[in-house]
Amino acid sequence: MASTFQRIVLASRPVAEVSTGNFRLETVPVPELKDGEVLVRNHYLSLDPYMRMRMEDTKSYAAPQAIGETMIGGTVGEVVASKNPKFAIGDKVVGMLGWAEMGVSDGVLLRKVDTTHIPLSAYLGSVGMPGMTAWYGLTQVIQPKQGDTIVVSAASGAVGSVVGQLAKLRGCRVVGIAGGPEKCAYVVNELGFDACVDYKAGNLLADLAAATPDGIDALFENVGGDIFDASLARMNPFGRIALCGMIAGYDGEPLPIKNTRVLLTMRLTMRGFIVSEHIELWPEGLKELGALVATGKLKFRESLAPDLAAAPEAFLGLLKGKNFGKQLVKLI
Amino acid sequence: MASTFQRIVLASRPVAEVSTGNFRLETVPVPELKDGEVLVRNHYLSLDPYMRMRMEDTKSYAAPQAIGETMIGGTVGEVVASKNPKFAIGDKVVGMLGWAEMGVSDGVLLRKVDTTHIPLSAYLGSVGMPGMTAWYGLTQVIQPKQGDTIVVSAASGAVGSVVGQLAKLRGCRVVGIAGGPEKCAYVVNELGFDACVDYKAGNLLADLAAATPDGIDALFENVGGDIFDASLARMNPFGRIALCGMIAGYDGEPLPIKNTRVLLTMRLTMRGFIVSEHIELWPEGLKELGALVATGKLKFRESLAPDLAAAPEAFLGLLKGKNFGKQLVKLI
Repeated sequence: MASTFQRIVLASRPVAEVSTGNFRLETVPVPELKDGEVLVRNHYLSLDPYMRMRMEDTKSYAAPQAIGETMIGGTVGEVVASKNPKFAIGDKVVGMLGWAEMGVSDGVLLRKVDTTHIPLSAYLGSVGMPGMTAWYGLTQVIQPKQGDTIVVSAASGAVGSVVGQLAKLRGCRVVGIAGGPEKCAYVVNELGFDACVDYKAGNLLADLAAATPDGIDALFENVGGDIFDASLARMNPFGRIALCGMIAGYDGEPLPIKNTRVLLTMRLTMRGFIVSEHIELWPEGLKELGALVATGKLKFRESLAPDLAAAPEAFLGLLKGKNFGKQLVKLI
Repeated sequence: MASTFQRIVLASRPVAEVSTGNFRLETVPVPELKDGEVLVRNHYLSLDPYMRMRMEDTKSYAAPQAIGETMIGGTVGEVVASKNPKFAIGDKVVGMLGWAEMGVSDGVLLRKVDTTHIPLSAYLGSVGMPGMTAWYGLTQVIQPKQGDTIVVSAASGAVGSVVGQLAKLRGCRVVGIAGGPEKCAYVVNELGFDACVDYKAGNLLADLAAATPDGIDALFENVGGDIFDASLARMNPFGRIALCGMIAGYDGEPLPIKNTRVLLTMRLTMRGFIVSEHIELWPEGLKELGALVATGKLKFRESLAPDLAAAPEAFLGLLKGKNFGKQLVKLI
């Protein structure tokens, strides 16, 4: 077994836009395991928008990423050494071992997964945190009713793609918003959304109006900014908004909500949420998501960065919507 | 009895800020009553922020005010002629007879009120629509818990003053935001709020932080703009926001919400509402409000414009916060 591995640490906090210079690739020795610890060879690293906020030293639901420490991140991999009776060599595990080829865990946040019917990488996507974000926001915040028109921004992404498919299964009319004709075609033809609006086509308001002839009953918002304002303009009275993310404003100043009057005149309810606020619901959600993926009813797509060194560039791309589907880094 | 009366009609829609030129004072004949109708001599007209939005021809929860017609508005007065068996001459009534000295009603939206223990004008304020707005937003949207810190903007106004007093009765710590030292002193010394921040003093963020050492659990928002953003910055996790009004943005372009990230990181729930969405709750609310006013436990203050001709100027002042307490027009 190798005696060293590579990791990426936060070198400096971004001042405005994040750059690859904010990260540093390091080679570090594989540590000795203490009693209770597990050594994992990571196969995939998950890149997610929330990481951008952790890079800043501001008040949030979580502590900021420490300078000089391994960047936070979800991982899947295989146990390669264990001094923990709950884990054996060869176990496939999902954890939070960060931007690194290997990681040591005390086992508390490490979870064994079954890859018989579900590919390992899916535990970072549709059957992992992004999938649960979709499931939680849809079932607990939006609470869809049959016949609702539901709009989902970043519709081809790791979260949006699951939101739309789950909403279709619940009898909703689902309209996606995505960037570019290729993503929009995928959202409609592969994922089965009823329509998808290409926000890069330059007619967002008119195209969204055409795609939502009965208005919008519920909105699952991942993007913020102009895209959010456009959806707000189509909301029906008593519409519900699950505010999941505002990625358009992460890489610099937060973007304002300009279309504020409709919040009042349409008597909208908007709720910001994060997936970890009700951990007790994860078993229920993961059971549904796992069954749907295992039976091919929940489709997903992945963008793979080829190795750890490519992670920063892939992360910058994610913030600009350059990924197509769930953004992962292949580590083996 | 007079054969004519004065009314004010909407002469033109405001392009940006409303001006007195958007209104026209007219003298019109007192109409003949048809069967079922009631003629009311109005004593007071209520001026309310929602009227500004009705002056525009945009999608909202209600149809826009028609050009050339009597401006919409709540009124209290006395029945002076009746061809409706439910109303007798001398009855005190509250209704929606508009900016006019007299009005004819078919009785459907006219309600007899008891002025034995409650002054007639209070039925346009604390025991009327503004009071119910406060009661509904507080009890149904915010759902206060004992010990909550609740912030109320436009705290000395017709709605905010009631919100704060009701919240105090429910065991909350209540902090108002108002414009100027005189209003702030009134809010604390007369209405019994725990603190009041003067947004005109120039230190809104710091003063609000000092007044809310434990953060804000719930916000009753009447103003919008910078005042709203300042409160957002102090919200605690899972905070609730009752979005009642955004008067700072009514007289022109709606103001943006700039402090958007906190909606997500603090997992806030924001709900826009209007008082008429659950009419079935009015009896319960008005019963509490009436009892509190009758026993002197709910205090209020009124700004009186002296006659109908003074109504447009008073309305412009209301939009700029020049009123102190409930803005009324005295008509008799």
